[in-house]
Amino acid sequence: MSDKVILTGIKPTGMPHIGNYLGAYKSLIEMSNSHKTVAFIADLHALNSVHDAKTVKQHTYEIAAFILAMGLNMDNAILFRQSDVDAIYKLNTFLMNVTPKGLMNRAHSYKAMLEKNAASGDDPDNGVNMGLYTYPILMSADILLYNADIVPVGADQKQHVEFARDIAEYFNRMYGNVFRLPEPQIGVDAGLIPGLDGRKMSKSYDNTIPVFAPESELRKKIMRIVTDSKLPDEPKNPDESTIYLLYKHFANAAEIKNLRELFENGKIGYGDAKKILFEKINSYLDAPRKRYEYLMSHTDELDKILADGAARATAIANKTIERVRRAMLG
Amino acid sequence: MSDKVILTGIKPTGMPHIGNYLGAYKSLIEMSNSHKTVAFIADLHALNSVHDAKTVKQHTYEIAAFILAMGLNMDNAILFRQSDVDAIYKLNTFLMNVTPKGLMNRAHSYKAMLEKNAASGDDPDNGVNMGLYTYPILMSADILLYNADIVPVGADQKQHVEFARDIAEYFNRMYGNVFRLPEPQIGVDAGLIPGLDGRKMSKSYDNTIPVFAPESELRKKIMRIVTDSKLPDEPKNPDESTIYLLYKHFANAAEIKNLRELFENGKIGYGDAKKILFEKINSYLDAPRKRYEYLMSHTDELDKILADGAARATAIANKTIERVRRAMLG
Repeated sequence: MSDKVILTGIKPTGMPHIGNYLGAYKSLIEMSNSHKTVAFIADLHALNSVHDAKTVKQHTYEIAAFILAMGLNMDNAILFRQSDVDAIYKLNTFLMNVTPKGLMNRAHSYKAMLEKNAASGDDPDNGVNMGLYTYPILMSADILLYNADIVPVGADQKQHVEFARDIAEYFNRMYGNVFRLPEPQIGVDAGLIPGLDGRKMSKSYDNTIPVFAPESELRKKIMRIVTDSKLPDEPKNPDESTIYLLYKHFANAAEIKNLRELFENGKIGYGDAKKILFEKINSYLDAPRKRYEYLMSHTDELDKILADGAARATAIANKTIERVRRAMLG
Repeated sequence: MSDKVILTGIKPTGMPHIGNYLGAYKSLIEMSNSHKTVAFIADLHALNSVHDAKTVKQHTYEIAAFILAMGLNMDNAILFRQSDVDAIYKLNTFLMNVTPKGLMNRAHSYKAMLEKNAASGDDPDNGVNMGLYTYPILMSADILLYNADIVPVGADQKQHVEFARDIAEYFNRMYGNVFRLPEPQIGVDAGLIPGLDGRKMSKSYDNTIPVFAPESELRKKIMRIVTDSKLPDEPKNPDESTIYLLYKHFANAAEIKNLRELFENGKIGYGDAKKILFEKINSYLDAPRKRYEYLMSHTDELDKILADGAARATAIANKTIERVRRAMLG
């Protein structure tokens, strides 16, 4: 058991797909077996784009049920709604005062909006609300509030942790040594997770396999994987096949080696390979899917788990916010 | 008794001078005799410029003691520290998401910084922190949280209330009718309150008379008022005399008429007129000064008053924030 605290916030944007799971959640869930883990559903971060309370609430349940079903180790983890901890709003408000505006101008998501508006000839701030503009401060507050040591992020999110460090340093320089500096931990790249059409699995390509699709939908999706037109008895390059590339993430070493040989030796057709892949993924997801479906039809239990998590998170957060309040207001 | 709620936030920036008192606080205190009044010390607004907790705390006590000593009617008013009400941080964070960045670009205080930086050839955002940039949102949160009907402001602060209305309307349009729209009430201009040198009384001219200067300092300040060199028996224009102009704010009608005649008829020298002014202001301030000094040497009593106010403010604020939370997060 490590003594490092891991922190992760998950924006509630709908059911994760297998690419999300393999790329981010799987390693996080594994880490929760050996680390204290602070995991929250970042519903406040959803508010700058989602303006429908029912959607935010539903997606929050889905993410909570998903991560519980996939095996977040609740002996070591606390799981809660970001919005349920009063101290997060306080730290967000306090940190505004030590954050130079110039830092926000450098945020990737804001710069993307600037570029988009420049391309269409619109006003630079067209469509930018202050929730979007200030979200790096809220994200820094998330990280600093819970004294996280390690924040696992994708390479494209490294800036969030850098900003949190910058803001912590501005604060510490002005008010004394209040914040611990977090370290980013760039996730081990799970490699390209191909989608149904062979491109990277991504909602924007509409080529995803949702983690908890019902069994019949999962089968249909997998049978729809795009292949070349090689006949069953032709040798095939497994490393160019979506079927094999997905199988690798769910099967054990012997199984992987076996499918590889069948591909290379022209001993299997794509149809049969898809069936093997479906059986493998389906058996991997079967128990979690039952657990997921149970939780989604017992949201009162989710509420209880999240409320318990919020109480424990609040106990940690209140200590931090009291240090901050004293430093700033006496 | 009106059924309208008046709201005022006072930034803790040190002891008010007589120009502040006559220009803003006097009418507010009078209104508290006939209106429910929500008055708070805006310590969170101080944080974007004051980075010393002791100073913020001390100034907070001074303003609280000042307004109590001058007679804020505590039968109708609640007085509290802004930072003591948890819901203010929440509303600040929530409102970010409905506020277009373009609105913030139009804020007077931000534009003043842009102009200053342009003049000195600096980066536009030089010296701008996000507390300064977002303070109109925090100010809107102040106004909307307590369902204020009327916000007495100086003409130069009208924008604050307009922004609060704009942000309330953005919110209501997006989430349904949650916020009442506040009305600005532009203060009756108390006229120019002249300072010791005859220019407008202002800290930046270093010509002020602090409200609660000790008696001996008050006398010295008043004896230092700049006059022309007319002799006692020469007729003088009272409307051009700082002495008379200040006297008007503290004396009754008969007294004012009397001094006016003495000026016009050359029956009084400036030295004697200053003595009359000193006696008048001193007797006006004598009892409040004692009360002020008592409170400043009994900050535990101030703490109790402010804590009581915070509890009552929290009861109001929690109702508002619960409506907001439901609208945004379900």
